[in-house]
Amino acid sequence: MFKLHSQLNADSVILGNLPLCQLLLVNDQQYPWFVLVPRRADISEIYQLSDSEQQILWQESSLVSQTIMRLFNGDKLNVAAIGNLVPQLHIHHVVRFKDDVSWPSPVWGKYPMINYSSEQIKKISQKVVSQLTLADD
Amino acid sequence: MFKLHSQLNADSVILGNLPLCQLLLVNDQQYPWFVLVPRRADISEIYQLSDSEQQILWQESSLVSQTIMRLFNGDKLNVAAIGNLVPQLHIHHVVRFKDDVSWPSPVWGKYPMINYSSEQIKKISQKVVSQLTLADD
Repeated sequence: MFKLHSQLNADSVILGNLPLCQLLLVNDQQYPWFVLVPRRADISEIYQLSDSEQQILWQESSLVSQTIMRLFNGDKLNVAAIGNLVPQLHIHHVVRFKDDVSWPSPVWGKYPMINYSSEQIKKISQKVVSQLTLADD
Repeated sequence: MFKLHSQLNADSVILGNLPLCQLLLVNDQQYPWFVLVPRRADISEIYQLSDSEQQILWQESSLVSQTIMRLFNGDKLNVAAIGNLVPQLHIHHVVRFKDDVSWPSPVWGKYPMINYSSEQIKKISQKVVSQLTLADD
């Protein structure tokens, strides 16, 4: 059974479910940073999903990518499945700006997270959720 | 018309072409590191490819992923489209080991590349090319 990894749970806010993936907002106000987690147990690599699941994953990734790039007007999107520390398959989608704190470096391990206020989380969540058809957990 | 970005060309060896992507071996002996570059001009984000091209891209990514993980017996695969410095869309596939120099950090910007010898390049290229059906440039 799928259960979100405790580290992802600690670092993020759950926005809702797409048909395959849970959509998370990473609680770091330095970048608009979203994560897709396929709701499948014991999967750590993309190719361990079935062919049809992989297809759905990338459709959901493309939908989220276009939505967040449009909403935040980013300069570049970084899409990555790394998982060296958290083995549960999760795909980062980070909107990057040429004047963000880490540019042009990748964001992972660069700076400690700076949490949003609860007001900011509410605002950014509504902004994204209003553009996507998400189911509750 | 598609032309490989000069930086990718400088850092890599071209192994051949899959139906959509050019397959590169990054010239860094610290990790088995491969890059897929869709042979389409002026594309910097995955979602800028057509739906059918995206589908082919991820099929090729999955094929390459499984092949290199099997050949090099890695602990984890890192798959990433970053492109903050080189805007031409390219998708990294890095086989990671728990005892590699950067583990568990991502590899980008971590350590300077250490080039292979020409003998090593020949060996690793043959190893991978023998497992894939690649066309010449």
